[in-house]
Amino acid sequence: MERRYRANFINSVTGYKSANLIGTASPEGIDNLAVFSSITHLGSDPAMLGFITRPTTVPRHTYANIKSTGIFTVNHINSSIITQAHQTAARYEDDMSEFDATGLTTQYLNDWKAPFLKEAHIKIACKFVNQYEIKENGTLLIIGAIQHIHLPEDIVHNDGWINLEQADGVTINGLDSYAKPTLLDRLSYAKPDKQVTSILDKK
Amino acid sequence: MERRYRANFINSVTGYKSANLIGTASPEGIDNLAVFSSITHLGSDPAMLGFITRPTTVPRHTYANIKSTGIFTVNHINSSIITQAHQTAARYEDDMSEFDATGLTTQYLNDWKAPFLKEAHIKIACKFVNQYEIKENGTLLIIGAIQHIHLPEDIVHNDGWINLEQADGVTINGLDSYAKPTLLDRLSYAKPDKQVTSILDKK
Repeated sequence: MERRYRANFINSVTGYKSANLIGTASPEGIDNLAVFSSITHLGSDPAMLGFITRPTTVPRHTYANIKSTGIFTVNHINSSIITQAHQTAARYEDDMSEFDATGLTTQYLNDWKAPFLKEAHIKIACKFVNQYEIKENGTLLIIGAIQHIHLPEDIVHNDGWINLEQADGVTINGLDSYAKPTLLDRLSYAKPDKQVTSILDKK
Repeated sequence: MERRYRANFINSVTGYKSANLIGTASPEGIDNLAVFSSITHLGSDPAMLGFITRPTTVPRHTYANIKSTGIFTVNHINSSIITQAHQTAARYEDDMSEFDATGLTTQYLNDWKAPFLKEAHIKIACKFVNQYEIKENGTLLIIGAIQHIHLPEDIVHNDGWINLEQADGVTINGLDSYAKPTLLDRLSYAKPDKQVTSILDKK
């Protein structure tokens, strides 16, 4: 397979991916924002997430800033900002903030030293915890501990579940495509002796 | 936060996740199928994916079978099978196949010794490559090398991109909710000196 064809194909074939912008600041105070499709839930207690990066490709400022400052933010992409979000993947000069370059807005909250994205409805502050090198291809799994979360209270249901559709969330298809999910159903806890059923009406 | 509330909340707040069923067979020939929301693209060349598991929780048969046989399949969940897909998470007895328990259908292709899911439109055969223990919470990142892929040819565009909407793909929201994405846009490669634009019409 030709290189670009292969990249499009393999990136699509593994399914829909999460759509987030990671915000960091350099020690010199230059803000950085980069689109990531690999953010994955790692555990709830302690609350941790992970993402895959390669120190030498475009989001290299993200990695360098996380290593220097020990912190970052994770900001959900919504349907109003997909063009700007995708534009953050351009290889800007070191002294250029992707916020300025793309017209997105920094927000500083709770004295956290990494920038949040004002336009995001769900924003997560993370502390760097560890990194694991995936020897097979030289990528890194970066582990973050969730420190605090900013989101509209009214999208959190009584049992903690968040309907991401209410936050206008999107998902990434391949390297360059954005899609907007519509909730199909919420299902009961699976047990061997009974069929799962919808629990959508039960708040 | 109460345990269940926390699990719902933290699992939702990290965003939409990929929706797949992993198929394996035990050395005794008992087929197994389990829902996973953590499958992530790791690299295109070599083509690799990863997922997170915990050896001791429900998908323990998946892990044990992968370790015994060295292979597994990844099958996309589509909107017609979300109830059966979710039901595979029940803690069935060792000798019970989740295919039989949920009414889903095994399919053996290309002499691959792990079962595919007949109902899935996109099916990936993987070889186990390595595992990394995430010390922070005892989970494992399992690395698979993609060996072959089965999908309808007409959903693959000329440049390798797949519109997952054409495969009726779904995404997972939290622990128990399934949503169906609709494509918003496909965007051009991001460069510093020009604005990204839609490339959807350009096949």
